[in-house]
Amino acid sequence: MSNKKLIFLTNDDSYRSKGFAAAIEVARQFGRVIAIAPDAPQSGMSQAITIYNPLYLRNVREEEDVLVYSLNGTPVDCVKMAFDHLFKDEKVDLVISGINHGSNAAVNVLYSGTMGAAIEAAFYNIPSIGLSLTDHDLDADFEGAVKYGTQVVKAVLDNESLPRPLCLNVNVPDIPCDEIKGIRLSRQTRGYWREEFYKRTDPHGREYFWLTGAFSNAEPNAEETDEWALANGYVAVVPVQVDMTAYNQMEQLRTIL
Amino acid sequence: MSNKKLIFLTNDDSYRSKGFAAAIEVARQFGRVIAIAPDAPQSGMSQAITIYNPLYLRNVREEEDVLVYSLNGTPVDCVKMAFDHLFKDEKVDLVISGINHGSNAAVNVLYSGTMGAAIEAAFYNIPSIGLSLTDHDLDADFEGAVKYGTQVVKAVLDNESLPRPLCLNVNVPDIPCDEIKGIRLSRQTRGYWREEFYKRTDPHGREYFWLTGAFSNAEPNAEETDEWALANGYVAVVPVQVDMTAYNQMEQLRTIL
Repeated sequence: MSNKKLIFLTNDDSYRSKGFAAAIEVARQFGRVIAIAPDAPQSGMSQAITIYNPLYLRNVREEEDVLVYSLNGTPVDCVKMAFDHLFKDEKVDLVISGINHGSNAAVNVLYSGTMGAAIEAAFYNIPSIGLSLTDHDLDADFEGAVKYGTQVVKAVLDNESLPRPLCLNVNVPDIPCDEIKGIRLSRQTRGYWREEFYKRTDPHGREYFWLTGAFSNAEPNAEETDEWALANGYVAVVPVQVDMTAYNQMEQLRTIL
Repeated sequence: MSNKKLIFLTNDDSYRSKGFAAAIEVARQFGRVIAIAPDAPQSGMSQAITIYNPLYLRNVREEEDVLVYSLNGTPVDCVKMAFDHLFKDEKVDLVISGINHGSNAAVNVLYSGTMGAAIEAAFYNIPSIGLSLTDHDLDADFEGAVKYGTQVVKAVLDNESLPRPLCLNVNVPDIPCDEIKGIRLSRQTRGYWREEFYKRTDPHGREYFWLTGAFSNAEPNAEETDEWALANGYVAVVPVQVDMTAYNQMEQLRTIL
């Protein structure tokens, strides 16, 4: 065997997306690429798993060093299918989820199917990187995301002593590649989505709603946040944990429970 | 107006579930209850939101102090529909999500639709409690969950100075109510699901899979964990945070990025 790395890919925009092709471009510079990606868009699926439906797996691309399957499930299903079934005897060096069409900064980390998959990968003790570009366009320009994604991937692959679980949420600003100022290690911005429900009436006279909203940044001037980094031309990298315990609330809660 | 509290309910097992009726029983002791719950089971939906489908809202129950709607969406959609549309002018004192049929202890907090809704409620600055019973049975016995759920709800409503965001993950063991030893403030157990994919063949000769698995506890003897509490006859209460930043990894990552 060679000393090529083995990189597993998934995403939430489906294996047909331009961002997924961009992720393959990033990954294949480092070695062999295997992928299971949803067969249809799964944005906003968070860390959802499929309990009530059977899963169909399909080989959709096979060439030298690139093997791609599609699955009719969530991004997390793809990761589980990879590491508990299809590739369970392979030693995978890194998981890349993305490149997402749209930001996963701030609280989006919790709604994002891209980051759901990256967090799931961390449960298998494999370093994982969620890559996102802050542009929803189907035909978005991934040049900057490929360049800086490559840089982060190289840094992780070159440093095997990094702590585990390791899961990085990497967001690249939607500006020309040569205007990006570099990488900024950041923390998750405080702030929340506030929704507007667009009301419509269907042909049968029944009312329905479309969920839509806007992110409200609670700390727009905090230079250590991921939203600040992106707004100021930097790639934001936030390390993500999987322990949701609010340790700082323990003491006060102990007095009332 | 009276000094009755206003409590919002949702869940992930649908408004028809026995656990949802049990949650109404808990909530109505404290005042008025309004609810939006999924119209079909949404277990394992995590913090997913509905982007690609229109949402239909339906009034399914209206009586003194209890108003229930159903929504063809995720638990998080229900919370957003409540606080950004249907009840946005009401001051809600507490959100209860549940009572879930099945455990949401340990890493289940990340997959759970019940906890997804509870975390979402925290984004609206409303104290929230996810209530779960470690029994998946449709006809599970909720006596203990109602008793201890009531106790936790009372403690939160009686203590308005608790920190915000406040989101509690409350799991009740599936043992007779009078054998439950009390409440233990706990932290999220380390451990992960390992899946088995059951392979079947459909009538058209195509292979498909069912996702199924078992939780592997990485620290079964750690008395401060929620799994230990449940295994030893206690109700486990874990405060949940919404900042996913792994601050303890910042320093080491700064050296490589």
